[in-house]
Amino acid sequence: MTNISIITIGDELLIGQVVDTNSAWMAQELNKAGFWVNRRVAVGDGRTDILRALDQESAGAEIILITGGLGPTADDITKPVLCEYFNTTLVINEEALENVKNIFVKILQRPLIERNLKQAEVPASCLVIQNKRGTAPGMLFERNGKIFVSMPGVPHEMKGMMTEQVIPYLQNRFGTNFISHRTLLTAGVGESTLADHIADFESALPPGIRLAYLPNYGMVRLRLTAFAAKAGDLKSQLDHLFSELKSRVSEWMVTDEDITLQEALCKLLTERKQTLATAESCTGGYVAHLITSIPGSSAYFRGSVVAYDNSVKKKILGVDPAVLASAGAVSEETVRAMVRGAIQVLETDFAIATTGIMGPGGGSEKKPVGTVWIAAGNAQEIITQKLWFRFDRQRNTELTGANVLNLLRRFILSRAPS
Amino acid sequence: MTNISIITIGDELLIGQVVDTNSAWMAQELNKAGFWVNRRVAVGDGRTDILRALDQESAGAEIILITGGLGPTADDITKPVLCEYFNTTLVINEEALENVKNIFVKILQRPLIERNLKQAEVPASCLVIQNKRGTAPGMLFERNGKIFVSMPGVPHEMKGMMTEQVIPYLQNRFGTNFISHRTLLTAGVGESTLADHIADFESALPPGIRLAYLPNYGMVRLRLTAFAAKAGDLKSQLDHLFSELKSRVSEWMVTDEDITLQEALCKLLTERKQTLATAESCTGGYVAHLITSIPGSSAYFRGSVVAYDNSVKKKILGVDPAVLASAGAVSEETVRAMVRGAIQVLETDFAIATTGIMGPGGGSEKKPVGTVWIAAGNAQEIITQKLWFRFDRQRNTELTGANVLNLLRRFILSRAPS
Repeated sequence: MTNISIITIGDELLIGQVVDTNSAWMAQELNKAGFWVNRRVAVGDGRTDILRALDQESAGAEIILITGGLGPTADDITKPVLCEYFNTTLVINEEALENVKNIFVKILQRPLIERNLKQAEVPASCLVIQNKRGTAPGMLFERNGKIFVSMPGVPHEMKGMMTEQVIPYLQNRFGTNFISHRTLLTAGVGESTLADHIADFESALPPGIRLAYLPNYGMVRLRLTAFAAKAGDLKSQLDHLFSELKSRVSEWMVTDEDITLQEALCKLLTERKQTLATAESCTGGYVAHLITSIPGSSAYFRGSVVAYDNSVKKKILGVDPAVLASAGAVSEETVRAMVRGAIQVLETDFAIATTGIMGPGGGSEKKPVGTVWIAAGNAQEIITQKLWFRFDRQRNTELTGANVLNLLRRFILSRAPS
Repeated sequence: MTNISIITIGDELLIGQVVDTNSAWMAQELNKAGFWVNRRVAVGDGRTDILRALDQESAGAEIILITGGLGPTADDITKPVLCEYFNTTLVINEEALENVKNIFVKILQRPLIERNLKQAEVPASCLVIQNKRGTAPGMLFERNGKIFVSMPGVPHEMKGMMTEQVIPYLQNRFGTNFISHRTLLTAGVGESTLADHIADFESALPPGIRLAYLPNYGMVRLRLTAFAAKAGDLKSQLDHLFSELKSRVSEWMVTDEDITLQEALCKLLTERKQTLATAESCTGGYVAHLITSIPGSSAYFRGSVVAYDNSVKKKILGVDPAVLASAGAVSEETVRAMVRGAIQVLETDFAIATTGIMGPGGGSEKKPVGTVWIAAGNAQEIITQKLWFRFDRQRNTELTGANVLNLLRRFILSRAPS
């Protein structure tokens, strides 16, 4: 089994200014390609910390992938430290130099300054990986049969390099193990209840096949992974076990693919050629953003009225001022009226709506922070649900989004057959 | 200087299923409290990997903070491994047991199953940190003067425990160094141009004061940090240097506080008692979501029309069908009409609008993927800007959001004095 360690370099990771999204993406892609990431380490822009990490990680892994610290500013020291570690010196790489000039002169149309030219310098002993999306080239080193690859930390630059150059190189060089995943998504059930429900299934899994519980935003993903040096009959075993797992959790299953709830909805509504609108108060555009983050959502999503202020609920969505005055903005009556209004004004088959108090302020004894009403329906029928969350503003918003999309999915499947 | 290492445990981090947002938050809070995180390590749910990480990290740090692996399912093994490492056994903690019962019976109103009761077990030798937001208690161990704290990986549970119990304990125990930050936000300028512009300032910084460049979403934050065992006159030096830095980058400065662009806008408009609406096509609700993610935004933000489909642009925003037919949805004429429509229908002082092609599909030779028009204005005047991004759907959306909010900020400050 070929083990990989990821080293991310940069003070910004240690002072918490930047969330490391690169590592998760890298792990996913490496996994799909049959490699196993067994450690990830983040260190600052300090010489001894970087050298120590290179030593420690190469002791436990065959491949060491490094990101960050390749920028043009003084705090970026990865290149000189790599020179020291591999006992070599910096030289200009002509192809990288052409690339830097091209980016500044033709694309950015900014003057090329001395500092940018340094981006074309690379350690003499490395194999240079050209960067098609930015100025900092990647560098590949080999020592004692171990491979070290240094890449920029800018996400889209690193991703392009990984996909087009690094992963193909590693697959060619190391061959690959057999690895296969099957994932399903559940909603409306907690991790421990699920685990109890399928405890016997889990404990009877054969060697080489593992079950993982992956909770996120009020949903739990279940992933079965088969991992071995050779496929053998693991693949058919995995298929068989996945079928069994699906029937065991069918009451909560949203989809048996490794996709998000909004991707599942996109497929469902696109296939049915039906349309959707949202009317959002407390989620403030978040649900529309979730929906439109999926390419292809324009096939079914018409738009949203973000009715943050009550005046918008009345004027555009046609919510009766008397309802707002008597039941209040956070009420079943209001959320129903929002769905009706959205279907009418945005002329769609379905609509969903949210209204609630996300915090930290705005709560009362009768309607504490975290009180949310959600609704989903069509022109004939609307279903509603009252939620109560005890989290922070961000998580309350995310959970409301997941719940209202799932409410719509259930409504479509149960009430409106295609 | 007290060094901290963070160990995050969980296979989900190594297969890339979950992005680790906990570490960044922890580092920020620890930093503010005068501690320095010098390494972060992520390992899977494997006994030897966890034991190796505990050994390695305690060799280089005084405080080892551990998150994850405390769930109720079989893959969570942090507790037994900690028992092995600290040579102790699991016992029931009565207060934690009461908490588990309370959560299931009173709050979740779900049956309490055997598996959940195990959440109340803790290693006999640890100091128990009660969890006010979930079932898994925290655990504090001490060995050879080093402190180990194990916390759940669920973000809001970990955050509550850190803020209310762990950080106060560590401050009391270790004392603190002097640490102080001053941060400003710039927009519309690249990291390397900025670095060149202030190269002499940076190289003349005294010992104990560092400058960091923190690029994010098309903006660059500049942070000056003073760090020393004792404050001395570092604080007045920092104030003086920060004033100088501000005047050096004034043409690009958005704010001299450590806040986001949307927080700066929230302050500006709330102070002026003016109102805002958005009309979004390509950003699909993202800009409204950015705005409403700030508590207090309801003071100035009325709402948004997410006009994803052209029918919504016509019907609600009143965009002339002839303009859509001749200039197209992605055009200066359309984005202007969207601002006018939003101001009229949502009855606000200002509005901003976006229309573009976010990719991966939808581009043409004349309007390639990444082409975006943005606009900001009031009833009297509207300014527009054409953007072209070469990134993926998510980053194109984020950059459009940052640019349109900054366009509005500039419009308000230059054209509409309060």
